[in-house]
Amino acid sequence: MQGSGVDVGVLGVLPVRATQLDSASAVDQWLRSVGSVERSRQVGAMSRDKLAGFVSLLDSRTGPDLIGTVDPDLATRIVQSADAAQSARWLEAIESDEAAEILRRLPDPTREQLFDRISEPQAQALRELLRWPPTSVAAHMLPDVFTIPDTITAAEAETLVRTQSTQVRGRARVGALIYVTDADRRLIGFLEFQDLVLAQPDQTVSELSSADPVWVRPLVDAEQAAQSLVDYDLAALPVVDDQRRLLGVLTADAAADIIETEATRDAERQGGSEPLEVPYLRASPFRLWRKRIVWLLVLFVAEAYTGTVLRAFEDEMEAVVALAFFIPLLIGTGGNTGTQITTTLVRAMGTGQVRLRDLPRVLAKEMSTGFLVALTMAAAAIVRAWTLGVGPQVTITVSLTVAAIVLWSALVSSILPLLLKKCRVDPAVVSAPMIATIVDGTGLIIYFLIAHATLPQLAGL
Amino acid sequence: MQGSGVDVGVLGVLPVRATQLDSASAVDQWLRSVGSVERSRQVGAMSRDKLAGFVSLLDSRTGPDLIGTVDPDLATRIVQSADAAQSARWLEAIESDEAAEILRRLPDPTREQLFDRISEPQAQALRELLRWPPTSVAAHMLPDVFTIPDTITAAEAETLVRTQSTQVRGRARVGALIYVTDADRRLIGFLEFQDLVLAQPDQTVSELSSADPVWVRPLVDAEQAAQSLVDYDLAALPVVDDQRRLLGVLTADAAADIIETEATRDAERQGGSEPLEVPYLRASPFRLWRKRIVWLLVLFVAEAYTGTVLRAFEDEMEAVVALAFFIPLLIGTGGNTGTQITTTLVRAMGTGQVRLRDLPRVLAKEMSTGFLVALTMAAAAIVRAWTLGVGPQVTITVSLTVAAIVLWSALVSSILPLLLKKCRVDPAVVSAPMIATIVDGTGLIIYFLIAHATLPQLAGL
Repeated sequence: MQGSGVDVGVLGVLPVRATQLDSASAVDQWLRSVGSVERSRQVGAMSRDKLAGFVSLLDSRTGPDLIGTVDPDLATRIVQSADAAQSARWLEAIESDEAAEILRRLPDPTREQLFDRISEPQAQALRELLRWPPTSVAAHMLPDVFTIPDTITAAEAETLVRTQSTQVRGRARVGALIYVTDADRRLIGFLEFQDLVLAQPDQTVSELSSADPVWVRPLVDAEQAAQSLVDYDLAALPVVDDQRRLLGVLTADAAADIIETEATRDAERQGGSEPLEVPYLRASPFRLWRKRIVWLLVLFVAEAYTGTVLRAFEDEMEAVVALAFFIPLLIGTGGNTGTQITTTLVRAMGTGQVRLRDLPRVLAKEMSTGFLVALTMAAAAIVRAWTLGVGPQVTITVSLTVAAIVLWSALVSSILPLLLKKCRVDPAVVSAPMIATIVDGTGLIIYFLIAHATLPQLAGL
Repeated sequence: MQGSGVDVGVLGVLPVRATQLDSASAVDQWLRSVGSVERSRQVGAMSRDKLAGFVSLLDSRTGPDLIGTVDPDLATRIVQSADAAQSARWLEAIESDEAAEILRRLPDPTREQLFDRISEPQAQALRELLRWPPTSVAAHMLPDVFTIPDTITAAEAETLVRTQSTQVRGRARVGALIYVTDADRRLIGFLEFQDLVLAQPDQTVSELSSADPVWVRPLVDAEQAAQSLVDYDLAALPVVDDQRRLLGVLTADAAADIIETEATRDAERQGGSEPLEVPYLRASPFRLWRKRIVWLLVLFVAEAYTGTVLRAFEDEMEAVVALAFFIPLLIGTGGNTGTQITTTLVRAMGTGQVRLRDLPRVLAKEMSTGFLVALTMAAAAIVRAWTLGVGPQVTITVSLTVAAIVLWSALVSSILPLLLKKCRVDPAVVSAPMIATIVDGTGLIIYFLIAHATLPQLAGL
């Protein structure tokens, strides 16, 4: 493929289209030519019949390769399309955390059928994984870990690890670590395969290993654990019980999946929608409607309040109809200011940069910024009111209002995400639509109060 | 720490606060107790004087540890606070891609001063990294890679790699790979350290290595390369020239940083703001103002159009003042519907799930969903108009309008991100405020056109 103008490629493999797949070897070549996103896309788009035909071409090597890489929702459909004996062998061949992810999605009878066909002790290990709450880190951990004592030499450690590799099933992860434990399986340190290779054969494990391993408890929220792994720059995060005994590890791969899934959920929440939970292209219009309509109706009810406000100020609008011209502009600017703040803030909270105790700093920063923004926007409003030719008094009203709404919106938007976090609600639900809705109704009240104070025409109303 | 109720911890290390740091050993203990986010937070909050005092406590081990983990902006400030000879040694000790990231941020004279003190051939390697465009994958690659021929045995490979480790400077990454190349340094395969340890000593490298490595060209966009790495589930992505010669690798760590930075930029753009480029808590109010005011003013100018529309329909509003009550509700609902769609779509495009050629599928899906949403919202509008007591005719106008605006907003929001992508503009700029602004003005026109068609009172206007 060199010199062909392709920027990313797989050496020695020609791209194949999923439509060309009619033999086991074609499937094999296809798998070597495409990444996980493209695999999910092409297989996910297949009809039920087409999928059944495709699954019949999978073998003991391509089956696990496929279900271990596509999204768990699709992997579950593939497992359901294959016969139970075959599915069981595929599930045995992929990593326990991924197998558990699929098993968790299956209906009870199908799952039990598969468990009957998965050999012990692996079925036992998978059952144990499924027993942890799905949002806990323990539900996502890999129970198979290399463990060695710290008293042996590098050469002895190599031999020991080679023996364990027959028990640590399947192909362990790229960059897997070796944990150092004491006689009671208590965690005391870790080292990398690379350390063993690069060591002198007679160096002891205690010389080679890093002490101070970061650990996590099994019931910790999986997202929090995944972020700790990234934060401490680890290849794997050990999960320990309250006796510090090693239960398993969260791998960097599993952590990346958890973070990516959570980032998608947050993005969807930020857009004022419930998380879809399946890839967008596979979500049916009915599912999209169901995930979106809840917030739309809630916001509609909240926004309906603006009608009440406007009816209350009906006389004012009839007296000075020009006031109505600025309604969308004023509440729109308030919504925009607030959206900028909450989006930045929710992201900064999501990456751990901003915490509850930072509220005073956030408020100080946002109110100072809000003051600069208010001045700029008030100037812009003067220009706009002047071009609409509404007279100096309405111009003053409008520019004072825009400044007041900007400050009000900044206040609400910088407090709300932190307040929700304090109430243990995901701050990502503070969506752009929610901020706009809150600022719309309250902004109108500010507008008419300022109009009353500045316009002599409204004095009697 | 066991049994203390702590959920995540570092074994054998007691937490230290940055304020307690007054000796090199205190800094050492602090570094062992906190992750990168907390390091950036605490050091980033220091005043210039405080930072200088802190930097003077860093040594040849803690210095590299710190600048290799905090955000590059802060790392640059730390390097500038230390004396040049010391900084140069720290930069030598961290990975080339991270060192380049810092050097790129330094003013030219400081950078040259440091280059003079960094020993060859490393200075040369860093200069070469800096020569690549900053957005290309080559600018983020690690040039130091283990390479072996495929003809030797596992035992010979271990020895060879051990020899190379003295040349491959610093501590290579967790999970680093070993690349298999031919005599001309052309890439032919790869294997893991783990494969070497678990192999029989007399197995040949060609038996152990994976063929079909995924590769990338040096000038490919760093974000695209990072996504390919994730997509193909790799520990590192080799960068090759057009002769397929290995130039370096993008590590999974570097890829994770690139993806995280880009996700933060996208989130900020989605909120209708320019990316901050520094951690939120370190952004000054003036920087926040500068990054936000551009879009606020653009949107203000665009939104000002609503005033023109409303003035054009002034007579209609005077004739039926109840029409004005529904303005925020109608345009708000339109904005909300559109925001839900663009947010989901931009995220799906960001993760590679949706591409340009999916436009027909996206449109079909969104128009079907839009139809369901329109029906629901029209029903809700009937209820709301009835409770406001505006009479049957305005009720009909309002519910027809809400349905029309929902469909219109769905159309605009599903086409716009893909259209921008086609024009090579980042679709993340389609923010909630932008959609709201587009739908506000056009939605009002739809409103008054429908009012004209349904309200007999407006017949003569």
